[in-house]
Amino acid sequence: RCFHFCKLPGRVTGIRLLRFTSVVIIVLLLVAGALTALLPTIKDDKLPNSRREPKTQSQSALDSFTLIMQTYNRTDLLLKLLNHYQAIPHLHKVIVVWNNIGEKTPEEMWNSLGPHPVPVVFKVQTVNRMRNRLQNFPDLETKAVLMMDDDTLVSAHDLAFAFSVWQQFPEHIVGFVPRKHISTPSGVYSYGSFELQNPGFGNGDQYSMVLIGAAFFHSGYLEDFQRQPEAVYALIDETQNCDDIAMNFLVAKHTGKPSGVFVKPVDIRNLEKDTNSGYSGMWHRAEHLLQRSYCVSKLVNIYDGMPLKYSNIMISQFGFPNYANHKNKM
Amino acid sequence: RCFHFCKLPGRVTGIRLLRFTSVVIIVLLLVAGALTALLPTIKDDKLPNSRREPKTQSQSALDSFTLIMQTYNRTDLLLKLLNHYQAIPHLHKVIVVWNNIGEKTPEEMWNSLGPHPVPVVFKVQTVNRMRNRLQNFPDLETKAVLMMDDDTLVSAHDLAFAFSVWQQFPEHIVGFVPRKHISTPSGVYSYGSFELQNPGFGNGDQYSMVLIGAAFFHSGYLEDFQRQPEAVYALIDETQNCDDIAMNFLVAKHTGKPSGVFVKPVDIRNLEKDTNSGYSGMWHRAEHLLQRSYCVSKLVNIYDGMPLKYSNIMISQFGFPNYANHKNKM
Repeated sequence: RCFHFCKLPGRVTGIRLLRFTSVVIIVLLLVAGALTALLPTIKDDKLPNSRREPKTQSQSALDSFTLIMQTYNRTDLLLKLLNHYQAIPHLHKVIVVWNNIGEKTPEEMWNSLGPHPVPVVFKVQTVNRMRNRLQNFPDLETKAVLMMDDDTLVSAHDLAFAFSVWQQFPEHIVGFVPRKHISTPSGVYSYGSFELQNPGFGNGDQYSMVLIGAAFFHSGYLEDFQRQPEAVYALIDETQNCDDIAMNFLVAKHTGKPSGVFVKPVDIRNLEKDTNSGYSGMWHRAEHLLQRSYCVSKLVNIYDGMPLKYSNIMISQFGFPNYANHKNKM
Repeated sequence: RCFHFCKLPGRVTGIRLLRFTSVVIIVLLLVAGALTALLPTIKDDKLPNSRREPKTQSQSALDSFTLIMQTYNRTDLLLKLLNHYQAIPHLHKVIVVWNNIGEKTPEEMWNSLGPHPVPVVFKVQTVNRMRNRLQNFPDLETKAVLMMDDDTLVSAHDLAFAFSVWQQFPEHIVGFVPRKHISTPSGVYSYGSFELQNPGFGNGDQYSMVLIGAAFFHSGYLEDFQRQPEAVYALIDETQNCDDIAMNFLVAKHTGKPSGVFVKPVDIRNLEKDTNSGYSGMWHRAEHLLQRSYCVSKLVNIYDGMPLKYSNIMISQFGFPNYANHKNKM
């Protein structure tokens, strides 16, 4: 049966119906409006930067590297090199290990000459130790580390290429300075370079180490380095030398393969002579090489075995600097 | 109660006891003798050769390679090259793919000039096809194949080094002749070498193929080659060309990486000019390079995509031929 509504006269019913439907329509529109406000914001509304940030960070970690440069008594060279290295492609950040104890870092001056392409962090040290550069710096965000001596200038082309090589050999030390050890019948080891007899694996020479003073390696090895036997730290501190030999031992032990991959540099220079400080590097000390031979033997004792392996692979960049560097005479 | 034995007089018992124990002892000795005969033969008893055989076989499979050389109308070059290659270190066997249809192989003459350092097998073909050399020969016992054109002379030093490099990159084609493709805005591909513009990945050049006419690769790829789309075989047969490009496509697809690793040869020579046959290789045909560009595009269609990847890694042997080839000017 039809109720209250039906009792009304036809005309009044019509107007009430109209009002009713109008109200319903308005309510529906309001609800719809409220719903659209709740919809997820579409692309155009977002700031272009904010969407890109997370991607840049993960991209940075894999596609860029951190330069770690330890410095002592050669601030003029340091700053010259920073001017060069700050603009290397794929560089994420620079960590300067400041071994000038008690001396102010050039941070103020650095900042006054900003902005700079990448952040530079000055890590002030309390003791002047060779192995300071092998700390597991919390500032490190990238998988790759480029370690450079504070007197070594390597061209941007060489660094860009070597970084791409490291990306293909991430568990190795990929760098520009190869060295080798040889064992003697007495069981005592000797350290050196091309001047030493080749270890006798066919023709040509071999290398068993790549020095970390001009090389890329995985930041995980800095973590590993914190977990070495105390005797290793004692050896490095006693000689103020051999931290790079120790790193090669560590990497070789870890991989069971040759620790390094040698990339032949097109343009690498030592700027030592250019310093105003008059300070020349540790390698000028009379006992330097003898110390390193000593270190090799000591490390074999500490690690109870010789983990270093030989390699004769030399990598160059195809077609650079000369596109004809690979033309054969066929 | 004591039985029969006890009834006997003491003296008789003593003798019987003695006999009994003697028999027991003799039986025990016989049993012991029989047992020692069943023991595994100790080392000294084995023939020195028979113990070494299985090891040599497995050692051979991993530490040596098989040379596959296809030949057509250049038997003089073939024999010259066989004299050279038969003495390469780590060579296991030579397979000559005889494309001289209807012509006798030089096997008799070869045997009359024996013995030779390694076995040489002449595989007589029924049709003169470029892709005959890519069969999965049952004669193949090694993991590694060295494929050489019948007019290419590579020094033993280069081959020994390249083999050691292949052992470190077994899934790649490790060889001496790099080539590249470039894509054009029209989507049509071009094939070439240093004369083509570099693909634009920074400075220097790139390569995306290593030709199999002077290269090491895994014998498994010959097996894989038998399972390619029919259109690939048709293309190679139609052009009598491009089998090497097809192999690079196959390898790149399989690894997802650049197919080849380029080893810069110290001494590689083309002996074409030296042949008496007057026959010069296929690459002198006017359409040779155009065919190869055509092949690249066709293979992209067949494989529904471009699997080739670029590399700029060039490998040389450290300290050879000159120990100073890695000295830097620091």
